[in-house]
Amino acid sequence: MPGPLTYTVGMEAHRERIERSRTRITKLVFPQDTNPIGTLYGGTALQWMDEVAFLTATRFARCQIVTVSMDRVDFKVPIPQGAIVELIGEVTRVGTTSMTVRVQILLESTESGAQKLAIEGHLAMVAVDDSMDPIAVVREG
Amino acid sequence: MPGPLTYTVGMEAHRERIERSRTRITKLVFPQDTNPIGTLYGGTALQWMDEVAFLTATRFARCQIVTVSMDRVDFKVPIPQGAIVELIGEVTRVGTTSMTVRVQILLESTESGAQKLAIEGHLAMVAVDDSMDPIAVVREG
Amino acid sequence: MPGPLTYTVGMEAHRERIERSRTRITKLVFPQDTNPIGTLYGGTALQWMDEVAFLTATRFARCQIVTVSMDRVDFKVPIPQGAIVELIGEVTRVGTTSMTVRVQILLESTESGAQKLAIEGHLAMVAVDDSMDPIAVVREG
Amino acid sequence: MPGPLTYTVGMEAHRERIERSRTRITKLVFPQDTNPIGTLYGGTALQWMDEVAFLTATRFARCQIVTVSMDRVDFKVPIPQGAIVELIGEVTRVGTTSMTVRVQILLESTESGAQKLAIEGHLAMVAVDDSMDPIAVVREG
Amino acid sequence: MPGPLTYTVGMEAHRERIERSRTRITKLVFPQDTNPIGTLYGGTALQWMDEVAFLTATRFARCQIVTVSMDRVDFKVPIPQGAIVELIGEVTRVGTTSMTVRVQILLESTESGAQKLAIEGHLAMVAVDDSMDPIAVVREG
Amino acid sequence: MPGPLTYTVGMEAHRERIERSRTRITKLVFPQDTNPIGTLYGGTALQWMDEVAFLTATRFARCQIVTVSMDRVDFKVPIPQGAIVELIGEVTRVGTTSMTVRVQILLESTESGAQKLAIEGHLAMVAVDDSMDPIAVVREG
Repeated sequence: MPGPLTYTVGMEAHRERIERSRTRITKLVFPQDTNPIGTLYGGTALQWMDEVAFLTATRFARCQIVTVSMDRVDFKVPIPQGAIVELIGEVTRVGTTSMTVRVQILLESTESGAQKLAIEGHLAMVAVDDSMDPIAVVREG
Repeated sequence: MPGPLTYTVGMEAHRERIERSRTRITKLVFPQDTNPIGTLYGGTALQWMDEVAFLTATRFARCQIVTVSMDRVDFKVPIPQGAIVELIGEVTRVGTTSMTVRVQILLESTESGAQKLAIEGHLAMVAVDDSMDPIAVVREG
Repeated sequence: MPGPLTYTVGMEAHRERIERSRTRITKLVFPQDTNPIGTLYGGTALQWMDEVAFLTATRFARCQIVTVSMDRVDFKVPIPQGAIVELIGEVTRVGTTSMTVRVQILLESTESGAQKLAIEGHLAMVAVDDSMDPIAVVREG
Repeated sequence: MPGPLTYTVGMEAHRERIERSRTRITKLVFPQDTNPIGTLYGGTALQWMDEVAFLTATRFARCQIVTVSMDRVDFKVPIPQGAIVELIGEVTRVGTTSMTVRVQILLESTESGAQKLAIEGHLAMVAVDDSMDPIAVVREG
Repeated sequence: MPGPLTYTVGMEAHRERIERSRTRITKLVFPQDTNPIGTLYGGTALQWMDEVAFLTATRFARCQIVTVSMDRVDFKVPIPQGAIVELIGEVTRVGTTSMTVRVQILLESTESGAQKLAIEGHLAMVAVDDSMDPIAVVREG
Repeated sequence: MPGPLTYTVGMEAHRERIERSRTRITKLVFPQDTNPIGTLYGGTALQWMDEVAFLTATRFARCQIVTVSMDRVDFKVPIPQGAIVELIGEVTRVGTTSMTVRVQILLESTESGAQKLAIEGHLAMVAVDDSMDPIAVVREG
């Protein structure tokens, strides 16, 4: 399992909020999520990662969120059908109207329950109002 | 948010395993999950609860699991479209071949992020082999 | 197949309405509905049951319906992938603003077509207006 | 509601089987089933009709079934989102290795519960073995 | 692959619009699209065809479209799970408020990539306004 | 609409294959694809892009394909619900066992039908055998 969070400079102020918005989703990899040789589609992993990032950022900023970019993602570890994975989203950078959310997909060993990092990505998310105009991520205090 | 887990008698031995198998799934309530007046279908909540219980029991027993019963469930708190909910599954009783998993659905306030218990259920899950015959939940030591 | 409906006291008045609102849904159990050992997920069965109860109660009361509780459900008979099942929903109790709907899942023999009861549940459903306030189930006469 | 079934010549012999294989599916029309002006997609109706025909023919012939053709279908009556519809499938012709299944989609009035025929179609279905070779529809007696 | 389009009389005027609205969708046939013997469900093919026809007609008329009928469709060529198919929709007749869209499903050889026509259908589509009243398909010039 | 393809050095040899494997998918953006303010989820766009890249690479290499990485993707142009988009996948680099596939999402104007580039991404795809070992992308000649 990945090591403890090391806050970047200035992130200490948001510590409690980061803890509360950390988002976990456990999933079972179903046949419909996998290609004919039985490994998770990259695109399905990417969709799951955006979903977790969206929830994490929504819980952090408590307003409407849109994804503005996703950094390069490598699929080094194939994830087999029937596997249990845990996705963890965490805010790692807070800007004025944007946040960076790191999403990790941990693959769980069926025998031991041990988790190892399989896929990691960083998404830039922006807080917006109903007209899609950016608004402050942290609005009170 | 619900209070700390109070282990039932004899559960202390399984404490670490219970901690590791505790399963969290955060979900956004989509339009397709709700009825025409915009509240979560009971049946969708029940399916989510079984999914969480299945993952919790699978991670606890590390073998194939089937649901054998679900206790009475009350839907006292309507869950609106657009809400963020967190489902938490936890093993609360360990038998020879069966477990009880308690699943809670916590409804999160959009403004404060505070969570309150909206729905709770208990599912009996049995560990089985490939022939559907019950096997021991705890197989080593 | 289950025996004839025996009306509870006072239900005779609603007989025609009960007949008209009786709801049947035939389903084929698909791979995506089943766990890795090929039997129907409990949660999928529960969702189907709520769907049938919702339709039955809507047809009976002809207004918006919400599920308020589901009684204990046992999954004694495993339902295999590829099976044909028939779900039947029927109003078995009529209150002022609520109804009880009994839902049965009948498993059909592929060879003979004979049906046997696999799962049964009772759901309490309430008639509501657009503000989610309870309204009378039987509004005319 | 449509009139009583009038058996075509030679169909009397299959009467009991036809009754037992008659298949009913009640459905609620969801937002995801409808176009932007809120009426059921033709293609969704066609898929539902094939699903009902498949179940009807499978229950009649009790073997694997494939659809070989669907006759012209008219969508004269728009079916609105939120409507309750009932699909009824019935075998109307029995050949050596094929059957015709008539499928009707009945639109139910929310106020009175009265049903009127909205869409009707006829599908030719063939009984096949695992190699996709046609086999007799009625195999015993 | 099918031969070049031969325009029917009077269609020359719409040539550029027909070219621009020609719609292609490539699909992989997934397990959930197929029956237990591994061939594409007729109803799934019909839904795909309506989807392509809907997009083709929408791009041609640039307004809201509804399907009014689908001509007889034959499923002569079974389409196996794992196959790649290409659907092509093309306007073949333009009326005042209606269009005919021909949809072809081409089955692609995994080895050579060669395509052969597997299923063909013709759908009548009508241009409508928000009140579902028919409007002119070609509105400018 | 984007300009003509400019082949990178050495790609001329694969020209015909690239043309044949170019993959187009037209999609309508449905309510379930969008967030509460009615714009396409980033994760849904990413999944669609992987799907197109997978089909493109499969048609090019005619064997099993897995995604190994996706380069950074920017979501500069919001894509509204109800929009028609066209996805185009094209092989832009051919290695020994890998390919790069460029995927573009073109947003179509409802009024004029004109397309503009909304999202672009590059995916690295690898040809594999049943044991997930890399194999040559171009195997004959």
